Amino acid sequence: MIAERLHYLGPEGTFTHQAAMIAERQLRGGAADGVVLEQSPDAATILTAVESHQGWGVLAWENNVEGYVVPNLDGLIDAHDAVGITRVGVDIAFDAFVSPGQAEGHPDIGGWGAFAHPHGLAQCRRFLADHDLDAHPTASNAAACRDLRAGQVALGPAICAQLYDLDVYERHVEDYAGARTDFLVLAPRDEALCHIRGLRDGGMAEFESVIAFIPLHTGAGVLANLLDILRDAGLNMTSFISRPIKGHVGTYSFVATIDAAPWSAALRGVLERVVDQGDWVKTLAVYPRREQPAPPVDAWMLPSGGVRGDATSRETPADAGEETNEESAARRERAAGRELLW
Amino acid sequence: MIAERLHYLGPEGTFTHQAAMIAERQLRGGAADGVVLEQSPDAATILTAVESHQGWGVLAWENNVEGYVVPNLDGLIDAHDAVGITRVGVDIAFDAFVSPGQAEGHPDIGGWGAFAHPHGLAQCRRFLADHDLDAHPTASNAAACRDLRAGQVALGPAICAQLYDLDVYERHVEDYAGARTDFLVLAPRDEALCHIRGLRDGGMAEFESVIAFIPLHTGAGVLANLLDILRDAGLNMTSFISRPIKGHVGTYSFVATIDAAPWSAALRGVLERVVDQGDWVKTLAVYPRREQPAPPVDAWMLPSGGVRGDATSRETPADAGEETNEESAARRERAAGRELLW
Repeated sequence: MIAERLHYLGPEGTFTHQAAMIAERQLRGGAADGVVLEQSPDAATILTAVESHQGWGVLAWENNVEGYVVPNLDGLIDAHDAVGITRVGVDIAFDAFVSPGQAEGHPDIGGWGAFAHPHGLAQCRRFLADHDLDAHPTASNAAACRDLRAGQVALGPAICAQLYDLDVYERHVEDYAGARTDFLVLAPRDEALCHIRGLRDGGMAEFESVIAFIPLHTGAGVLANLLDILRDAGLNMTSFISRPIKGHVGTYSFVATIDAAPWSAALRGVLERVVDQGDWVKTLAVYPRREQPAPPVDAWMLPSGGVRGDATSRETPADAGEETNEESAARRERAAGRELLW
Repeated sequence: MIAERLHYLGPEGTFTHQAAMIAERQLRGGAADGVVLEQSPDAATILTAVESHQGWGVLAWENNVEGYVVPNLDGLIDAHDAVGITRVGVDIAFDAFVSPGQAEGHPDIGGWGAFAHPHGLAQCRRFLADHDLDAHPTASNAAACRDLRAGQVALGPAICAQLYDLDVYERHVEDYAGARTDFLVLAPRDEALCHIRGLRDGGMAEFESVIAFIPLHTGAGVLANLLDILRDAGLNMTSFISRPIKGHVGTYSFVATIDAAPWSAALRGVLERVVDQGDWVKTLAVYPRREQPAPPVDAWMLPSGGVRGDATSRETPADAGEETNEESAARRERAAGRELLW
């Protein structure tokens, strides 16, 4: 790791702090080279620190329930000198904390006040109801843990126990397991290039890229033309979204996560071709490839309703067998019209 | 308007409540037919009410800063009988409220407590700093307005003044103007079809559609193939995102907002073709067309850095005129490598 500081969204004990601790361990590969983790008040301050070579930064990037953290995505598109070089996933899980000594014997906490950010309170409704706790919103989960007093419960990330010297009353009190947020570690471009060279020299062969495209000629088919180039190059995308260019309604950037490094023959060829045709392009992130399951889509995975080719609609009446062909075609047509609103 | 009830995310005075009030006026076209606005605790309850024909519902859909409200998008993809029929935009603006009588003479409120959801507090930082207010997070802005006491300030949507009988201390105290959230009014499919027929009979000619696609055969080029069909039909898209199918990492649905009605020859042809090739499709929303500016993308609109065809990089050194062609090509190549990380 090149940077001496790693900036994250504070206060201490946020999920971003947890991501920064994981990233720091990964990046320095076990070597104790004295990286300092530094809290920041907001994402803009973190981007500014990176761009002015005052260290690297950690930004929340994508959550599997909420989708992209769009302000951070827009911030990275607009940054003049910051690029993602590591992607770190953090399980969004909550522990219930009490003051030191208060967890002994797992006492009844009925009627106590429970403190967390409104999102944290909303994600632990069952625990609050089971223990008849009184919900008190705070500015952040970490602040709730930091300010915890006797006779109160705070809900927050696991790292808060050690950071604020709290006792764990119960682990994993979130209503739904499986929520996960991915974070990007950002570096200035020259340090990013140096870091990536080190990884490649060390034998790392497979990378993913996040690329932003802005077509300068607009109109129907602009996006299809761009994707044709990617398809013709045999590239696989794992995520794709459109975003208006900041402040300009009706203009679009496209952000694609692609299963290849920008210097691979296939993706480099695509980028050169896109630039040659006059469009704007920028690499937002390059990081070691994650395992990507690609299961076939089976009928049982599909959402409710909808229409598909072999059965037209999954809501087939039980007496379908007695229909004539014409009746069956008419029924399928009605079902399709209902699902598709035509 | 067919429904007698319109469900929104409570408590009274949320931005969703404001959207519901606008939608109700639009939908009943001035006729006083006694629609009841009813608050709900969460989006799942609203979807269930719509699907069980207990009225229509209002869900937050897309914010111009934060992007899609992805849990609501996923909820609509998965709903077995709910479809969007009206799209309503609400400016995310905050007024500062005080108790009745306390705004007279615009007194000094220095040191008072300011109450709002953490997002509301974060969006009104300048007002808090200017008046030296003490920030107190609440579960929602509407709850802050409802529970306001003398000697306190609440930050919330404009409708809260009338709803909770509060005085306005100052209007538009948000740091940045221009944030906007679009909401969808949802109806069961049979009522939606009836409502749309009424609009068409009344002379409404132009609609937009939000369509979800799930390709059942996956692999490189799946998305490009889908978009080729849309392009070949001459259809214009204004938004496009990919989402994993709920709970299945590595599987994808694509959600497109298209500038045409599903029953138009062009879009109906596309939907039939997609179904014929065995993929899954569902119309998530159809609503009257909004004005869509489509400005050409000029260089000054582009984000920092990046690479484009005519200049390769916008960061041209001042002494570029003295370069030889080879030097200039080498410099452009270095600049591109830096922006694209190849």
